[in-house]
Amino acid sequence: MKTCGIIGGMGPDATSLFYMKLIRNFQNRESYPPVLLYSVPEPFQAADAWIKENQGGDYLQKLILEGVRLLGPRVDFIVIPCNTAHMFMPHIRQVASVPVINMIEETCAYIQLRKRWNKVGVLASTATIQSGLYTYELHQRDIEPVLPDQSQQELLAAIIMHIVKGQFLSKDRTALQRMVASLLARGAEGVLLACTDLPVLLPNSYANPVLLDAMDVLAEVASAWVLEESNGLSIAGYIPVPEHRNHLFQRL
Amino acid sequence: MKTCGIIGGMGPDATSLFYMKLIRNFQNRESYPPVLLYSVPEPFQAADAWIKENQGGDYLQKLILEGVRLLGPRVDFIVIPCNTAHMFMPHIRQVASVPVINMIEETCAYIQLRKRWNKVGVLASTATIQSGLYTYELHQRDIEPVLPDQSQQELLAAIIMHIVKGQFLSKDRTALQRMVASLLARGAEGVLLACTDLPVLLPNSYANPVLLDAMDVLAEVASAWVLEESNGLSIAGYIPVPEHRNHLFQRL
Repeated sequence: MKTCGIIGGMGPDATSLFYMKLIRNFQNRESYPPVLLYSVPEPFQAADAWIKENQGGDYLQKLILEGVRLLGPRVDFIVIPCNTAHMFMPHIRQVASVPVINMIEETCAYIQLRKRWNKVGVLASTATIQSGLYTYELHQRDIEPVLPDQSQQELLAAIIMHIVKGQFLSKDRTALQRMVASLLARGAEGVLLACTDLPVLLPNSYANPVLLDAMDVLAEVASAWVLEESNGLSIAGYIPVPEHRNHLFQRL
Repeated sequence: MKTCGIIGGMGPDATSLFYMKLIRNFQNRESYPPVLLYSVPEPFQAADAWIKENQGGDYLQKLILEGVRLLGPRVDFIVIPCNTAHMFMPHIRQVASVPVINMIEETCAYIQLRKRWNKVGVLASTATIQSGLYTYELHQRDIEPVLPDQSQQELLAAIIMHIVKGQFLSKDRTALQRMVASLLARGAEGVLLACTDLPVLLPNSYANPVLLDAMDVLAEVASAWVLEESNGLSIAGYIPVPEHRNHLFQRL
């Protein structure tokens, strides 16, 4: 088995949930996987500005890069169960000595090849939306993103920050469910939870066919990497590897 | 802040719960703590023999020592949220380059100084009971342990193994509640959850004045170490440090 490196802490509930999703995939095997997890000391004020307004990401990038340098020599690959942190991916891959799985690319491939949605609602932090992480990758695959309107997006960013701070409010859950309904009403065939904090409030999303949790895709891909399983298409068994990403799989 | 090293995976649900208990202690501060967690690839067959019959611990000790060597140079102190693994403490401290907090000593000090119980029920793995980890430390403090009878202990070991494998059964929860009642009926003033897997099935134990979760004590002590807080008695603010344990605090 390969050792999975996890950069977490953004926020910690999402990290804990991802660790357990990965672990659950090994319950019917002979052993749990080896995991080395670094949880960054995320400062709440910086996280708030980052998630809501895409401000102050420099300090968070520094924390994440420190984590990548720490884990790199001691793991076989790295995952980062935080969609927003993927805006730092070019820098992360520059300092990483091992492959770093890109949750956004894997999730968009999953939407195209498994879900076969042509129009998808995207619930993400304002920073993720503003940086175009998902809209770019979805457009590359001819999938149309449906985004919350401005007031919904502001509420969503506030809800994400509540979850980061460990505040789980039933009114936030209700608001999230309304947003899902609203995106579906606007023609989305499904809704992507494109922030790993959201499934903390919507824990049964995997059982809901119109919801897709990006973290579930990442856990599935990471499990396959740990087990070095492949069906010839890719290590995860379902995602065709574009030419420019082949370097990701070179170690396996 | 100091970096907390966690050796986990025995089982992973307990690890995840401990990580969240530690994190929750920082919700009203300015930032989360830095944490480096190694989750060992625990093999189910070896874990089963170890927990139920105190057999085959050599391989688990090897996994844990590897984790300690991996974390040591990169953290300020180490905690192991698994009571049974404390039977390896002499070897662990031999290979550790940083202080390793002993959950069993801290918990027994807590029982003596905070709970002031003179007679305490102990729910633990058969390996923990057989190795005398708690009975020795409780007797040192003139506290009388009350242990389950043999058939209860066999059932308890089976329940722990279910939890390690992620099987959460309501009949197991009921059986645990009955064991607690039985220990209280035999004169125990309180019952110690001396296996970190048990609070996974009894999640609200912290709110129950007759229950004490050893993992809660460890999370409190670890939080104090992260923050380097002390009231002059010890870093954790309540545990007088016996002479022979002074080396533990030398880095702080």
